[in-house]
Formats: sequence, C-alpha cells, structure tokens
Amino acid sequence: MKKQRKILLMDCRDGKGLVAQVTSICFKHQLNIIKNNEFVDKSCDRFFMRTELEGYFNEAILLEELNAALPTQGHLRLVDAQKKRVVILATKEAHCLGELLMKNFYGALDVDIAAVISNHDVLSDLTSKFTIPYHFISHLSIDRDEHDKQILATIAGYSPDYIVLAKYMRVLTPHFVSQYPNRIINIHHSFLPAFIGAKPYHQAYERGVKVIGATAHFVNENLDDGPIITQDVIHVDHSLTADTMAQAGRDVEAAVLAKALQRVLDEKVFVYGNRTVVFD
Amino acid sequence: MKKQRKILLMDCRDGKGLVAQVTSICFKHQLNIIKNNEFVDKSCDRFFMRTELEGYFNEAILLEELNAALPTQGHLRLVDAQKKRVVILATKEAHCLGELLMKNFYGALDVDIAAVISNHDVLSDLTSKFTIPYHFISHLSIDRDEHDKQILATIAGYSPDYIVLAKYMRVLTPHFVSQYPNRIINIHHSFLPAFIGAKPYHQAYERGVKVIGATAHFVNENLDDGPIITQDVIHVDHSLTADTMAQAGRDVEAAVLAKALQRVLDEKVFVYGNRTVVFD
Amino acid sequence: MKKQRKILLMDCRDGKGLVAQVTSICFKHQLNIIKNNEFVDKSCDRFFMRTELEGYFNEAILLEELNAALPTQGHLRLVDAQKKRVVILATKEAHCLGELLMKNFYGALDVDIAAVISNHDVLSDLTSKFTIPYHFISHLSIDRDEHDKQILATIAGYSPDYIVLAKYMRVLTPHFVSQYPNRIINIHHSFLPAFIGAKPYHQAYERGVKVIGATAHFVNENLDDGPIITQDVIHVDHSLTADTMAQAGRDVEAAVLAKALQRVLDEKVFVYGNRTVVFD
Amino acid sequence: MKKQRKILLMDCRDGKGLVAQVTSICFKHQLNIIKNNEFVDKSCDRFFMRTELEGYFNEAILLEELNAALPTQGHLRLVDAQKKRVVILATKEAHCLGELLMKNFYGALDVDIAAVISNHDVLSDLTSKFTIPYHFISHLSIDRDEHDKQILATIAGYSPDYIVLAKYMRVLTPHFVSQYPNRIINIHHSFLPAFIGAKPYHQAYERGVKVIGATAHFVNENLDDGPIITQDVIHVDHSLTADTMAQAGRDVEAAVLAKALQRVLDEKVFVYGNRTVVFD
Repeated sequence: MKKQRKILLMDCRDGKGLVAQVTSICFKHQLNIIKNNEFVDKSCDRFFMRTELEGYFNEAILLEELNAALPTQGHLRLVDAQKKRVVILATKEAHCLGELLMKNFYGALDVDIAAVISNHDVLSDLTSKFTIPYHFISHLSIDRDEHDKQILATIAGYSPDYIVLAKYMRVLTPHFVSQYPNRIINIHHSFLPAFIGAKPYHQAYERGVKVIGATAHFVNENLDDGPIITQDVIHVDHSLTADTMAQAGRDVEAAVLAKALQRVLDEKVFVYGNRTVVFD
Repeated sequence: MKKQRKILLMDCRDGKGLVAQVTSICFKHQLNIIKNNEFVDKSCDRFFMRTELEGYFNEAILLEELNAALPTQGHLRLVDAQKKRVVILATKEAHCLGELLMKNFYGALDVDIAAVISNHDVLSDLTSKFTIPYHFISHLSIDRDEHDKQILATIAGYSPDYIVLAKYMRVLTPHFVSQYPNRIINIHHSFLPAFIGAKPYHQAYERGVKVIGATAHFVNENLDDGPIITQDVIHVDHSLTADTMAQAGRDVEAAVLAKALQRVLDEKVFVYGNRTVVFD
Repeated sequence: MKKQRKILLMDCRDGKGLVAQVTSICFKHQLNIIKNNEFVDKSCDRFFMRTELEGYFNEAILLEELNAALPTQGHLRLVDAQKKRVVILATKEAHCLGELLMKNFYGALDVDIAAVISNHDVLSDLTSKFTIPYHFISHLSIDRDEHDKQILATIAGYSPDYIVLAKYMRVLTPHFVSQYPNRIINIHHSFLPAFIGAKPYHQAYERGVKVIGATAHFVNENLDDGPIITQDVIHVDHSLTADTMAQAGRDVEAAVLAKALQRVLDEKVFVYGNRTVVFD
Repeated sequence: MKKQRKILLMDCRDGKGLVAQVTSICFKHQLNIIKNNEFVDKSCDRFFMRTELEGYFNEAILLEELNAALPTQGHLRLVDAQKKRVVILATKEAHCLGELLMKNFYGALDVDIAAVISNHDVLSDLTSKFTIPYHFISHLSIDRDEHDKQILATIAGYSPDYIVLAKYMRVLTPHFVSQYPNRIINIHHSFLPAFIGAKPYHQAYERGVKVIGATAHFVNENLDDGPIITQDVIHVDHSLTADTMAQAGRDVEAAVLAKALQRVLDEKVFVYGNRTVVFD
C-alpha cells in the first residue's frame, strides 16, 4: 500500500458534532488533513464539508465508519485527487476553447481534454495544434434531436467526467441534459440572470449598461437557468458597440470558464437545488 | 470683466469639421481649452462634445457664432462650472445618504445639499448632524398622488438642479417624474437589468448569483428602466444570505451613487434616448 | 447560565488530529460550531484555527481540556464575541475618520469609538457631530517623546482594545509602539512596500504608476514595515497629478482601513512574525 | 488615390489654439476625424494629441501645413493604421508567450509575430504550433555581450517595430537597450516599483502582501525602471506560497502584457521622460 491523496466530500442535514465525528474517524485512520472546508446553510439546515486527506487508505472500512456517522439523507463520496476527462463543445469562436487548450498545455489547467466537438469546421485547425481529436458534426439537414443524438454518441465514446460548452451556440435538448446532470458546464456571455438567451451583448448594448460580464453555470433543463459557479464583469462605456462589447468580453468569458472548470475539477463545487457551494 | 471658467456642451448630428469649427470659434474668442472630450455614436450618427473653457467670455456673441456652426436639430449649452443644488430623498437606510453628507462635508463631493426629504423619521438625526433641513413627509393615511404632491411642493421650495434618490424605497408617480426629466438620479441595488423591482438582494440570493451590484440611473416613467449612468459589482459567495448580501452591498451602492452624482454635477453626462454618454 | 457565543482562537505547531481533538472537546461540551476556519502554514509547520462556538460554556474546564490537547508552544484564547473599544488618532484629513464614524453610526462597523486624538484642531467639528470626545494635543513646542507621552496618557484613560491611526501623519516613537504590540492599526496611502514613508502619492506620480493603493497594517518598530492586514488599489492614468491622485485615493484608503479594522474586531486576524492570517 | 486611414500623433509645448489649428487643417484637407484624444500635462506645459483620420491624404502638403502650425520643439508623425511586426523574447515560461500567440491567432491581438527567440529550447514546441520561427540562442558558454550580440543580429533580420520580452528572464545589456529606445516592452511580475529585480513573488511572499501584480513597461538602461504602460493586480491571502503566487500571477501577467502591447501597436502610447500618456 502506498501513500495516497483523496478528497472526502460530504453533504447532509446539519447536526452537532459532525466535524468532530468525521475528523476523529480520519484521525483514527491516521490520515492527515491537508485542507478542510466546511459550510452550513442555515436556511435549509444543510452541512457541507470537503476534506483533503493524505495517508494510507483502508477505503472500505473508512467509508463504512463515515457512513455510520452520517445523518440520514446525506451524501458521502471519497474521490481520488486525479486528473479528470472532459469533452469540449464549441461552435465558431476560438477564445474559450483556445484558453482551455493553452492553459492545459502549460499546466494551468489540470485536465485531460479528450475531444472537441463542433457544429462547424472552423475550430479544427486550432484544435489540431494540440493534437486533440476534432469532431465536426453539422446541424444542417438534420433535426435537433438527431444532431444531439450524434453528439451524445460521440461523447459517449470518450466517457468524460464533464462536458464543457465553450461558446457552443446551440440549445441542448432536455434528453441531452438529462444524460449528464450537473456535469455540463456552460459559459454564458452575460452576468445572469441579465440577458438570458440569444445575443446578450446586443441586449446589453440596447440597455446601455456600464458593465458586461460572463457566467459559468451547470446546464439544467431551463435555458441559462442552471446553478451558477462563477461570474465576473468588466466595465464598459458609451464608446462600445454590441460588436466591440463582444470583443471586449472575450477575456472575461474565457477567464470565468477556466476558473469555474478548475473548481469543478478540484471537486470544490457542491450543487444543491439551484445553488452552488464553491470552496476556495 | 473677469476670467471665468465655463463648460460648452454640444450634441448634434455628426458632420465633417465640427471640432475644427467649434475650436476655431473658441480660439477666435481667445478662450483656452482646459479639457476637451468628443464622441461620435456611429449607430445614430450623433456627435457629442464637452469642452472646458477658460477666459473672458463675450457670451452672447460666442453663442451666436456657435449656434450658427451647429447642424440643425442640435443642442448647445454654455454652463458655469459652479456648485449645483440637490434635494435628497431617502427612506430609512443611512448608508447612501451618509456617504453623500460625509463626502460633501470634507469636499469630495462638490454640491449644495439643500434638504433631505423622507417618508420616515429615522434619518433626521443623521441629517441634522450636518445642519441640513429634514422634511418628514409620511406616506401613511394619504394616497400616492397626495404624497408625491406634498414632496413635490417641498422640493419646489428649494429649486434644485437635481433630485437624488438615496435609497428612497417608493416608486414615484409619472407626474412626479415628468416634472424633472433626466434630473432625478436613483440608486438601484442590483446590476440592472437584473433584479428589477422590489427586494433585489432576495432575488439575487434565490438565483444563487456570485456577483451583486448597484446601478445609478436617471429615473424615467418605467420602473428601473431609465438611462444608466454608473454600475459596479462586488463578488459574493455561497455563505451570504439575502440579508448579509444587503449589508455587503451598502458600500458599492454608496460609491456608485456618489460617483454618478459627481459626474452629473460636473456636466459630464449626456442623455440620449435611453442611453448615456459619460465622459471622464 | 445562559447561552453564549464565544470565539476559540488557537495557533500552534501543526500535528495530526488537532481538528479532531479540538472539535471533539467542543462536542463533549455540547457546544455548537457556528463557523470554523483552519489554516496550516507548511513553511513553518504552524496550525491556525478560529472557531465560533455557541452554547453553555463551562469555561474553566473547557480551557483546561483544550490546553491539554495543545502542543507545546501554542497559544489558545477563548474570547467573547463582544464589542471592542478603540481610540482613533488622526491629523487633518477627514476621510478615514469620517468613514469610521459614519459606518459605526449606521451599524456597518461594530465598535465603540471611545475618543479621537489629533495633533491639530481641524477634525473636532466632525468628531463632535458624533458626540465622541476629541483631544487636541498639539505637537508644537514640545518634543516627540513628550508629545507621545501625552497621547499615551490620554489613550490610557480609555483602556482601548485597539488604536487606529486614521491618517495620523506622525511617526510613533518606539516606546509608544511597544505599549501596544499588534494592537495599533495604521492606514498607509500606498500599496506597500512601494512608496514607504512621506508623500507616497508624490512618489507614485514621479514614478508614473498606473495603479495607486492603500495598505492597512499593524504598526511595529519599523516605519511602514508591520504585518499587512488588507490592501487594495485603484487604476489611475496620465491625467492625474500627485494632488488628484491623493483625492482619488481617499475612498480606497477609507475602505481598506474600515475592512481591516472589522476583521481585527471580529478576531479574524492572526499575526505571526511579520505576516498575518486573515480569515473570511 | 484611395481612401485611407492614418493616425496623427503630435506632442509639443502647449499653446492656445492648437486643437483649432490642427483640426482646421485636417478639415481643409477634407479628412474625417474618426477619433480624437488630447491631453495637456500642466506640470511641464506639454500638449499631446492623437487623431485618427480617414480620407484621401495629400501627405506631403498636409505634413507641411501641420508642421508649420507646430510650436518649436514639437514632434509630429502621421502613421498608417497598419499591422506592426514584433519579435518576442522568452525564456522557459509559456503563459505570456502563449497568450500572445493565441490572441494573435484568433484576432484579439493584431500583430505580425515575426519570430520567437529564447535562451532555452523549452518553448519551441509551443511556438511551432503557430508556425512561427523559433531561435534557440543559449547563453551558456558565452558571455553576456556575446549573447546579446547574437540575439540582436537575429532580431535585426526581422526588422521589427517592437521587441516584446514575454518573461525573458535575463537583463539586457545597455548596448541592446540603446538599439531600440522605447521599442522594447517588458512584463515584470510585480506592481512596480515594489519588488524590483529577481524573484518578485518570493519578495512579495516574504513581505506578506495581500495583492500581487504585474507591470508592462518600456525597457530603459535601468532595471525595471522604464516608463510604465499598464499595471494590474490580483488579491491574495495567507494561504499562498511564493510558488502558488507565481502560478496565480500568470493570468494577470499575460493580460497586462497583451493589453499594453495592443495599446502600443495602436499608437496610443506617448513616452516623455519616464512617464507615458496612454490614450483609450
């Protein structure tokens, strides 16, 4: 048996002594706590805990003891701190895809990008620079269900942990979404819930806003309504048009998506209801 | 005649040579340009110019010549760079009112605060510290029209240049708004157009956003829909409730309102349609 | 005995099982953990923990048990979550003092401001608005030691928990500083360590920087060299002079000081060596 | 003759009527002003103007007339709004080089990257993805003068408009710098003037700062002392080590460098003394 690093993820009804019980069990197993985060949502009386552990794991017994300590209707997972696999969907714009490819290349994003899928051929050149498979699946001359079906089949071949929509400009079918609950991460080019739907920069320009932003969120059955992971904004002034807003917004879109993805990959994001807990 | 400083404000259909014509007339009058800002909105072919001038003004002739240079359907104003007068409306919350009073006290806001009007008595202690008249005009036992009428009458006694809604939690009647077109500045406690209307922090909490913000805007006939002057946001995380969001948002509300007001007082804000040009 | 809220503060050599031991003792005492923060500084193998507890405290026994669990050379404190008392020192500028007075007035800063001391008479009007004692102790015609001695005597009369230097423009004597180790909080008007000493905005202007900032730090024996609590910056451009930089910097100075003070009052700041741990 | 876009750049002693004279000459030539920025530095009585012009240029006569209007000791340039050529120097770190390559690839940076030169072989793979020549010029077994001489010779072959130091970790010789006055842009990984020289993140960690930053500046004969173009910072807390600060700082370094370079490419940066005017 060799020394390992694992992450304990727990969410359950709040109760007295939870931290003491969990950390005592870990101590009994001689596991070292590298990092520990806790949060209690008083509004729904729910406890969240993420603990990075290091040592020699007797996983079966550890889980048995931890589960015994867990209140009913709780969730407990012990996951390896290892590289995750993603498939990226994109359309024509290169900046978000490029950010993920480049950051992954130099080690600022620790992920296995298994493939890129697009409904256009535009991004194949960029993707091939990083020797990653590119699947061009046109939406032309087929209906939405068939298109999503083809994409789902392609994704399935890679068994990804997460799917990343890096400016994929099509709405996924409910069937698609249901296959990967809380495992599809989208970047929307506005600070949601402002400017839901198409052409948010045009909406922003029309409204005359002085900030524009980006939102990374999990995709659920309602458009742009899933649990938010990360948001950020930049300041704009009257001199920007809808088009120059879109250009100016690229950096914040790419940064927000990369940051959200990293947090998800690090198992720092809990989803409950339509909300997230995002630990540092 | 003594040396004066005035601001020339001009907006009109765009055309070749406008800057040359205007600055040549100023030069002919031996006026020194202290600061000059121009902007052309290509989408509607409109030219905006703000010029700080210093010298000896022969105002009648200057205006005559400038008007002759102006395309039809343009606006031209020559205003004194002097202190403006405002009346502040508030309800119960002290932070925005307090920011304006304090900044004005130590000179970071250059304005004459003529009076504070509130539908509650809560803020009279704060206001009186700064020896400013406080009018408590309760909305109880009278209807909205009557309440606004009483407030309008009180305001009229001060002949303010602008009215500042410093967390005034009531919707103004259309009649009220029509009396002061583009002269009422409101602070709304969200980044509009997200969370229009009542309890934006509760809406923000429900949606699970990761940024909250504030918007200073001119009030028009539609709730929270007027031309935006200034916006800013702060980051929040899962640990905030609607109430602690409201507390955390106070600083950004106060800062955004003070900044927007200063820009308006400095004659740096042009309104056209539902948009603003805000010069530095 | 009635229900109380207390904060447990602990820092010591790191060791396995510390969280388990401490939280188990708290659980045995039937104390509820409201909030818990931990940090291990690997570089010096030091463990920091701040735990908000609620319940019925048998303080003597609790401390005895906790101390028994503590490694040698550790520190452990159990403090009441109650209002602290401060004395503020200032010189002539109103913005930092004004921010603290105003925030305290409307409840955004939870502190008892016992007195304001200044080497000038300028700020007495502002202070008296909030019915707080003002001590004008001129530095003229006495030497530095005598001046500090008079101020120390005045401070002593109030037995403050902390002393806040709200733009107090004089260097404290080593004797003064030694009386209140890690209990004097200063706001310096630059992002330290840039622009140590006098006239940082002039230094910033001369260097042509594009950001200016403010630093709140504990005062130690070396000028502007104490442990940093909070820093922030704003962007500037070529159009600012040293004087307009100073004006523009007022908001960030006031905000940084208020934020740092709140963290200190909340017992969220640990000092070790020349560094701080600042919990959320 | 076809319609062209050119940029007029002018800096000179301030004087009355300069804007009027210049814009009148442009108007006489029937040139349309697309964008106009002016600034007067009162401290040294100097006028700066950048004017984007569109139309049919009779360049010889235009320049003659503009020069006649210019006060003595002024500078005037009329430059084409066209793509510039740069050579990038780097060492081992990929993030700044990667940002420039990627942004250039998708059009967010409008530049011709003629070549990448490095004293290591590490970045050749990244560079070759974008089919740009890579020159590995080792500094081993030769002295500094010889190394710089080889690099200068390689650069000369490309006749670049600017040289970009994208985390090039060696100090250039004075001779090197003198060959490209105000044409070498460096990114320094701190908010200068804090943490000049080697290992700024280690210095920042030692000092316990709560913000770290990056500075893009022109290189002059003194290390890290050239005119600053752009700066930005990010917030850090106690949990970061020097190494994780360096990782966290990569994004802001890359963003600051890209932004500064774009401003320089757009002819928006004037250098005078050790300062810059950077127009929007």
